[in-house]
Amino acid sequence: MKKFFASDNYSGVHSKIMKALMESNTGHEFAYGEDTYTAQVEKEFKNIFGDVGVYMVYNGTGSNVLALEACKKRGSSVVCVDTAHIHCDETGALANITGLSTLPIKNINGKINLNEIDALYGENRGTFHKTKPDILSITQATEVGTVYSLEELEEIKKYVKKNEMILHMDGARIANACVELGCSLKEMTGDMGVDILSFGGTKNGLMFGEVIIIFNKEIDVEFLRLRKQCLQLNSKMRYQSAQYIEYLKDNLWYQNAKNANDMAKYFDLKLRELGVEVTNKVESNALFAILPKKIIEPMQEFCYFYIWNENKNEVRFVTSFDTTKEDIDKFIEKLKELLKDK
Amino acid sequence: MKKFFASDNYSGVHSKIMKALMESNTGHEFAYGEDTYTAQVEKEFKNIFGDVGVYMVYNGTGSNVLALEACKKRGSSVVCVDTAHIHCDETGALANITGLSTLPIKNINGKINLNEIDALYGENRGTFHKTKPDILSITQATEVGTVYSLEELEEIKKYVKKNEMILHMDGARIANACVELGCSLKEMTGDMGVDILSFGGTKNGLMFGEVIIIFNKEIDVEFLRLRKQCLQLNSKMRYQSAQYIEYLKDNLWYQNAKNANDMAKYFDLKLRELGVEVTNKVESNALFAILPKKIIEPMQEFCYFYIWNENKNEVRFVTSFDTTKEDIDKFIEKLKELLKDK
Amino acid sequence: MKKFFASDNYSGVHSKIMKALMESNTGHEFAYGEDTYTAQVEKEFKNIFGDVGVYMVYNGTGSNVLALEACKKRGSSVVCVDTAHIHCDETGALANITGLSTLPIKNINGKINLNEIDALYGENRGTFHKTKPDILSITQATEVGTVYSLEELEEIKKYVKKNEMILHMDGARIANACVELGCSLKEMTGDMGVDILSFGGTKNGLMFGEVIIIFNKEIDVEFLRLRKQCLQLNSKMRYQSAQYIEYLKDNLWYQNAKNANDMAKYFDLKLRELGVEVTNKVESNALFAILPKKIIEPMQEFCYFYIWNENKNEVRFVTSFDTTKEDIDKFIEKLKELLKDK
Amino acid sequence: MKKFFASDNYSGVHSKIMKALMESNTGHEFAYGEDTYTAQVEKEFKNIFGDVGVYMVYNGTGSNVLALEACKKRGSSVVCVDTAHIHCDETGALANITGLSTLPIKNINGKINLNEIDALYGENRGTFHKTKPDILSITQATEVGTVYSLEELEEIKKYVKKNEMILHMDGARIANACVELGCSLKEMTGDMGVDILSFGGTKNGLMFGEVIIIFNKEIDVEFLRLRKQCLQLNSKMRYQSAQYIEYLKDNLWYQNAKNANDMAKYFDLKLRELGVEVTNKVESNALFAILPKKIIEPMQEFCYFYIWNENKNEVRFVTSFDTTKEDIDKFIEKLKELLKDK
Repeated sequence: MKKFFASDNYSGVHSKIMKALMESNTGHEFAYGEDTYTAQVEKEFKNIFGDVGVYMVYNGTGSNVLALEACKKRGSSVVCVDTAHIHCDETGALANITGLSTLPIKNINGKINLNEIDALYGENRGTFHKTKPDILSITQATEVGTVYSLEELEEIKKYVKKNEMILHMDGARIANACVELGCSLKEMTGDMGVDILSFGGTKNGLMFGEVIIIFNKEIDVEFLRLRKQCLQLNSKMRYQSAQYIEYLKDNLWYQNAKNANDMAKYFDLKLRELGVEVTNKVESNALFAILPKKIIEPMQEFCYFYIWNENKNEVRFVTSFDTTKEDIDKFIEKLKELLKDK
Repeated sequence: MKKFFASDNYSGVHSKIMKALMESNTGHEFAYGEDTYTAQVEKEFKNIFGDVGVYMVYNGTGSNVLALEACKKRGSSVVCVDTAHIHCDETGALANITGLSTLPIKNINGKINLNEIDALYGENRGTFHKTKPDILSITQATEVGTVYSLEELEEIKKYVKKNEMILHMDGARIANACVELGCSLKEMTGDMGVDILSFGGTKNGLMFGEVIIIFNKEIDVEFLRLRKQCLQLNSKMRYQSAQYIEYLKDNLWYQNAKNANDMAKYFDLKLRELGVEVTNKVESNALFAILPKKIIEPMQEFCYFYIWNENKNEVRFVTSFDTTKEDIDKFIEKLKELLKDK
Repeated sequence: MKKFFASDNYSGVHSKIMKALMESNTGHEFAYGEDTYTAQVEKEFKNIFGDVGVYMVYNGTGSNVLALEACKKRGSSVVCVDTAHIHCDETGALANITGLSTLPIKNINGKINLNEIDALYGENRGTFHKTKPDILSITQATEVGTVYSLEELEEIKKYVKKNEMILHMDGARIANACVELGCSLKEMTGDMGVDILSFGGTKNGLMFGEVIIIFNKEIDVEFLRLRKQCLQLNSKMRYQSAQYIEYLKDNLWYQNAKNANDMAKYFDLKLRELGVEVTNKVESNALFAILPKKIIEPMQEFCYFYIWNENKNEVRFVTSFDTTKEDIDKFIEKLKELLKDK
Repeated sequence: MKKFFASDNYSGVHSKIMKALMESNTGHEFAYGEDTYTAQVEKEFKNIFGDVGVYMVYNGTGSNVLALEACKKRGSSVVCVDTAHIHCDETGALANITGLSTLPIKNINGKINLNEIDALYGENRGTFHKTKPDILSITQATEVGTVYSLEELEEIKKYVKKNEMILHMDGARIANACVELGCSLKEMTGDMGVDILSFGGTKNGLMFGEVIIIFNKEIDVEFLRLRKQCLQLNSKMRYQSAQYIEYLKDNLWYQNAKNANDMAKYFDLKLRELGVEVTNKVESNALFAILPKKIIEPMQEFCYFYIWNENKNEVRFVTSFDTTKEDIDKFIEKLKELLKDK
């Protein structure tokens, strides 16, 4: 069975999820989210997050864009780090669909620097010649695999309240962050002032489908129309909801993420044992390492991964719910071999 | 096993499709459409349609909106029938995402009236105070279950060429239309001057996913960026492509649609035998009938369907790939019983 | 001095307005609306309309589009008559800029038919598959020169309140309507539940510039940012405000519109004396008449006007602030001559 | 007569322009650009620029946004300096109206650094996960008053051709740049590969109105519809065209800009004589100076100007077509006085 370290969305579907899909395939169901599975999954998410709005959407970009559209007021713009997915990796979808501009802040280990917001965009608040930076979007875990601590989230919460901003969290890898923090999902989201959350599952063992969780009632308005007119309404929604029911049952989401994180730590250990420089402190399921230029390509052919920074010969490895010690051991074995030949 | 006559998207996933999904779930695959399944499905579609662009998208609204965005030039608007899905049933997604206006034409049996285009919007062509009606969008099979004949499509082709318009076909139920016409898929699309086609599958036995087929090279430009920035890029695309590979294999798409159409004809026969007025000539998988007001609700409770025109006590039945004679017989039985009591 | 009956925007600038422009041209002033003229004009408009928001914009399309953007909520659409300028004569600007769809209602003498709204779009309110018709846009005077009476406006007010809609008035020719009704500007707008008004001046003796008047505080939010990001902020705004100060002083707006309306009535009389059929009851500054086909072109060459309905040989005449009895007499003279020759 | 050094759009209308406006106010004219003045101004601009498209629009933001919309292809984004007006000072109008994202490059003296484009966004060209940086927008003169030399423009031309980009020039202060370069308008625009130019006049003695000049025939398509649906069509266009006819006659544009530039140089000299640090090499009509913190506010009260960089006590002075040596001498006098008291 082929496996890669390129990205967690190279992985497949967890066997329990596949089983749930099959079992949900019995006869007809009401369409467009009026089925029994969707009603149930909403209940499950409310058990976790409290009295929230729960909306199934198709993918991560859709989830982020619709969430930020929901946050949008007249003249708004979105503050985020310069590495944010919404800023660099969604082909300008945010501006294209919502007309919102992003105001990037140089990241520190993938995280937002609150002081820089005031320094760079404080002036924007007071003049109609500039957009109003009243939305903050953070990513948990970040694009570089770091995880905001609860203390850091508390700081963000304070800042956001003080400046009357709306807080969005891009949680494409929220499960990995939650495993790292060892808290509940709610403690790191709604309790931290998150107004709206893009809750990801695809990267952690699902076939497709993300969920928008709305904590702030004021922005939870006509979202059903918004979802449809932004192309994110699934007609046979039961097949998305059935996946999430299984995902939440027996904490499958947690088990999957825990495996990915554990494997990243194991990978980290093995690389260091080999004398390979790992450039980050592993907090979720991504690790970055410096490899000799000569062996990068042969190793990619052996088992594909991304080059992160060509100039520094830095590569990125991402583990996933189905990564095993054996997968890593084989990779390390090959690496050892090539390092020797060098 | 629950079944309804409400809509074909109430139905589930064909067992062969489900099997194909399971079998595609082996290890890792390249993401974002660079997997082997997607490469294969593109080849299969090219076998059917010739040298076309093939793009997987999530849903019907996404498929229509992206296709029309691809047709858009400066100042364009979209001519369509007043019953078109893009005009009335997509929550204004077209205007919301693309800024395009629709110019509706009163339908005749769900079909476009070419003479009316000139009468109503001919003037628009020559003045910059109005949008330019240079896109025509037709639906095959139509919203009311009728099917454009090849002769009618020829007329449309001529009109479109003469007026230098781009032709879009909303093929959410293209399989049902194809069964009715008894021609090949290409003969009713590319050969008829269709520039871009929204090829549907969800309503005919798939779990999710539609396909945009671009015949016209001039508009097949940067579609990959367009798809991503319009929220329709599936990261684990293999699970969509695997469905379509199966769907095209052994003409499953045809078998499924044929069953739906056959069942609609059987249903039609049975209703007429019962003295129920069927208001349309059944050409695909939809039929419309007049029921006594009193029994509509009890029949809906017995087996759900939509009221189409409340004032006329007209209801709509839609059959699907999994409808059986038995399903219809049971329904007819119940109907007979209630009609008697009346 | 050339004059036409084509449209009131063919006319020039009233001499008092031109004088005011010259007198405002003294040295430097703060830019972007922070000048003393703009402060004064806001006060003048508040004297007329009460505690309203006052925003200078460039043109009629800009005024309508920004006003409707201000009304927009998630999933909204705009109900209007099928002849509305926003629906047919603004090159789809509304959809293009705001993403809003229009829901047209067949007009009765240019006016809205409230019953038709429920009949056609009542269903839209309850389903997320359709846009929410929560904005009503009416035009006063209408595209065909009719004027809503205060009684009709009361009916509209009631309907709008009952259905929780926002009411926009396109007042491109509001002065002409006001003259006809013989009431104050406020009595026909804010007092009638109008939430936001596009107050026109260009067609009635100004050089350029329209005004958005916002009665409803809830939608008067961040309009300065909205105006700039919708391309309608005038840097040297004093030259727009100076015009409006003069326009409001000594009721110049009223005098101008009164002349136009009076001349339309005089024109009507003279045409009827000649036996020419006038097809409308003249209520503002537009009249429609049937002319023998043969003489339409020669009369257009003599003094330009528009053909309204080619099939019926119906033409439109529009009078303006500077139309004189002499202008009309000369036209009538020529008409008499050509009618004789016929 | 009040005068300031805040911005050139604080200035009024040149007396010749005002006279031209009055003289154009004779009777009726065809509306929406079909008047004789607009026909003439188009000819005048073609005399200057060659076989170009000429389109009157209202303001600078409108001019930039429409020009960039005309450049837009699928997936495009706009590369510009981090100080570009389109990037920071137009309230996100570009994203709001066109959906285009800006890709900012750290400016060097207000100018683009071509090497940085490849370094930062070279990767964007090859992946559909990112927008395609195929439009370059430069500002001449720049936001900080510098002027691209013909040699620098040649470099840009080469870069743009090599990378198949479209080149937009924001010429809000193009006249000031032209005076500095001592070449013709065409030599610094069309001859330098500029595809589309936002030609400014408002800051240089006009009342309102900018012009879009399109050199590239391929993007000069349906611009009349584009202009109307982007809210920039002036109904009484003659009053804009009449200004431009006068502006181009006897090189008034040049005389006005020359005065502004000369006065900036005189100001520079006088400030240096006083020992005040001027932080830029004066190339157009803006200069930047360091003033003692204590006297900034009193000097602003004496004659208003902007603080540019609060931390450095740096202020900006802008001269305009009507600035006189006397205005500057009085300012210098006052400055001397306050510097002494300090």
